[in-house]
Amino acid sequence: METQDIDYRAEAVNLGGYLAFDETAAGRRPGVLVFHEGLGLGEFAMARARMLAELGYVALAADMFGDRRQARNLQEVVKLVGDLRNEPEKLRARGSAALTTIAALPQVDANRIGAIGFCFGGSVVLELARDGADLKAAVSFHGVLATRMPAASGKVKASVLVCTGADDPLAPPEQVKAFEDEMRGAGVRDWQVISYGNTLHGFTNPAADGSMMRSALYSAQADRRSWASMRSLFEEVL
Amino acid sequence: METQDIDYRAEAVNLGGYLAFDETAAGRRPGVLVFHEGLGLGEFAMARARMLAELGYVALAADMFGDRRQARNLQEVVKLVGDLRNEPEKLRARGSAALTTIAALPQVDANRIGAIGFCFGGSVVLELARDGADLKAAVSFHGVLATRMPAASGKVKASVLVCTGADDPLAPPEQVKAFEDEMRGAGVRDWQVISYGNTLHGFTNPAADGSMMRSALYSAQADRRSWASMRSLFEEVL
Repeated sequence: METQDIDYRAEAVNLGGYLAFDETAAGRRPGVLVFHEGLGLGEFAMARARMLAELGYVALAADMFGDRRQARNLQEVVKLVGDLRNEPEKLRARGSAALTTIAALPQVDANRIGAIGFCFGGSVVLELARDGADLKAAVSFHGVLATRMPAASGKVKASVLVCTGADDPLAPPEQVKAFEDEMRGAGVRDWQVISYGNTLHGFTNPAADGSMMRSALYSAQADRRSWASMRSLFEEVL
Repeated sequence: METQDIDYRAEAVNLGGYLAFDETAAGRRPGVLVFHEGLGLGEFAMARARMLAELGYVALAADMFGDRRQARNLQEVVKLVGDLRNEPEKLRARGSAALTTIAALPQVDANRIGAIGFCFGGSVVLELARDGADLKAAVSFHGVLATRMPAASGKVKASVLVCTGADDPLAPPEQVKAFEDEMRGAGVRDWQVISYGNTLHGFTNPAADGSMMRSALYSAQADRRSWASMRSLFEEVL
């Protein structure tokens, strides 16, 4: 497997992505964007990119904060994430820059691109889907589902899969309900929500042990199940 | 594959089940109960039993109405289902009789039994789970999730999977929410709810074309996805 740093830009911001793919494969393959959690692009999202490359996808772990910045504590997470959440247009533009970048790669079939995201990255994926991005699939793992710019009718192209912890305080039941109502209202062609019982925030990340965020806890079971559901969707639509 | 009619009893009622298994396999294997829709035990549930047998399970399609009675129209469905719904103890006893029957089969490992059900059968599966039945897995496909006897704390042993249509009027969002609250409240160890967008009642059954019940409509996509999720759960826990 080949991995490379890959620089791209959104307006004046330098973004430092990370690419993983099977360099021995021939021809154009489906591409998958990976959007990082609130901590920034680090080992977790890179490992997911490599897992996707092992499955045959060209995976680009995007940088949403610029210069591959990483938060060192929860205060920095709140600041970095908040700056983008308060300006959804900027957030969308930054996510779109990653999509443009992966679509332009010679080994990628630009008609078969999916996106996944974790925590904050889950919200990014959903914002791109709401924005009508050319994604075949959009998968959120324990992402916040609320938005300042709900999907307009007929706008969403992606098959949407939301994997959420039933006890995640960042995506409580009323937020899940509002999201489902948003999907219905916008006539989204294909969407699913999987709710895992006894599951908190951050369930895919073994580092989530409640130390940084009390409500984030790894669950091997929910991690395995949600990854399997993502794979099934990709096999179906990518 | 071998298929057989298999008679058993619950109190004074004769129940006419249908067994499917690979007769060339040796040793005890996991068993799966299949509970029929409101129409009664017919070709649909039998076909699912054969599909499970092809996957290596010993499958027993249960008879919940007695003498393998089948409803000819919606009025009969309402009557047959209503009689059992109004007496959840009777419903549970009848479901348990199927469990006792499959557990006693020489080719079945009684410690590895799962149950699935469709529409009315989904409710039966959930009632058995609530009753503390010795099931490793309980899967409801477009079942009604409401109950007169909510699960008591610590009682449920099965891993519960609910596959539901987001637009199913028989399991509307407030009912799904109440079910999730029930699972939380009862401290059910393992439960998941998958909600499929743009999906009505009866989505697994190609015969559901809106003619008998306006709100029942087959969805090849939701059928395929829910069956795959059931298989994943069985591979995990059976």
